[in-house]
Amino acid sequence: MSVISREHINKMNKRYRVQLINSLTGYKSANLVGTANTDTDTGVKNLNLAILSSCTHVGSDPPLLSFNFRPDKTPRQTFENIMSTGCFTINHVHKNFYEKAHLTSAKYPKNVSEFTEVGLEETFLENFYAPFVKNAEVQIAMKLIEHHHIKANGTEIVIGEVIFIKCADDLIQEDGSLNYEQLGTVALAGLDTYFTTTKLSKLPYAHAPAAGRKVPASPT
Amino acid sequence: MSVISREHINKMNKRYRVQLINSLTGYKSANLVGTANTDTDTGVKNLNLAILSSCTHVGSDPPLLSFNFRPDKTPRQTFENIMSTGCFTINHVHKNFYEKAHLTSAKYPKNVSEFTEVGLEETFLENFYAPFVKNAEVQIAMKLIEHHHIKANGTEIVIGEVIFIKCADDLIQEDGSLNYEQLGTVALAGLDTYFTTTKLSKLPYAHAPAAGRKVPASPT
Repeated sequence: MSVISREHINKMNKRYRVQLINSLTGYKSANLVGTANTDTDTGVKNLNLAILSSCTHVGSDPPLLSFNFRPDKTPRQTFENIMSTGCFTINHVHKNFYEKAHLTSAKYPKNVSEFTEVGLEETFLENFYAPFVKNAEVQIAMKLIEHHHIKANGTEIVIGEVIFIKCADDLIQEDGSLNYEQLGTVALAGLDTYFTTTKLSKLPYAHAPAAGRKVPASPT
Repeated sequence: MSVISREHINKMNKRYRVQLINSLTGYKSANLVGTANTDTDTGVKNLNLAILSSCTHVGSDPPLLSFNFRPDKTPRQTFENIMSTGCFTINHVHKNFYEKAHLTSAKYPKNVSEFTEVGLEETFLENFYAPFVKNAEVQIAMKLIEHHHIKANGTEIVIGEVIFIKCADDLIQEDGSLNYEQLGTVALAGLDTYFTTTKLSKLPYAHAPAAGRKVPASPT
């Protein structure tokens, strides 16, 4: 085991540091975020699709999820569309289309639809303005609730509220959790490495012998 | 495919909703967060260890990572220790001790060390105040940089800066990314389901044909 000092990190080649720091967190989610904007001159609705690895659970009642955006360094379309329209979609990425999903990270011009460019089909549900990914087994309609600006590096944290979920009944288990063994959703490590998974175990609530009460395994 | 409306979500049994919403994001990281506090009366240093699934990459230069805390609903020790001491550690959870790691989610009294209770060994590095998990192949020393209060449900987002990393040289690949095939780090879905992984592919930078330039797959 060797200790990598902060001084060493600061002196790393940029590309090397980006790969290292992005891979520190452990496994990440891979989600396609769908947004849209309507051109005020032409009335044309432009669709946008971007793969993001920063989706995080914030709360269950109300149901809240978050994403991080670096609007100062990366293409701004997804963040700008969310801020101007107040809505977006989250779509799981599965084994059968993860390579197409990864291609959405390329920098396309603002009026080009990543759906068309990478070969994924959009779909619209329940009159929701933002587009969903038809192939995704889990599609979530989200409403912008609040956002926070991280002073340290200009990252914006967007907090969204779940409006509805589209998912096959047989993918939801008796206790309410999604059946990840059936889903085929991929896991991501670092910037670019995709994984399938094998279940180890669904563990019971952890129980402190002294306290004698059950508590959930993570925040609700 | 069926649409689960927000009205339906609101009417769900609480436990069922918590399982469903916690499993929406896709795969999560599983990290043990180590903190400490020193009793002002006795001078005793109390250690705390908690499994968290919300670690997110915020930036690489400076190297920043974030966590979510629900201090109003869940045991406050980890969040309180971070706020009062300004430091914490992140430790990867591997296949050979994930069951012990999960047990840290139980509610132990404030002066009880989860290290002792679940059978994980603490270690101290480079005079850093917070404890590391000896068995973790990746150990990260973190300094509190800023925190954000989510108005919608009282969640606190803690942003930390990487101070140093302990990791074996042979776990770091040529491009700087950690070798997840060797690590044995587990992935988490929902509140309680742990997975091992199998690599599908490390994909190249996505490239938009029209723009003719390379961009990274996610924010740096």
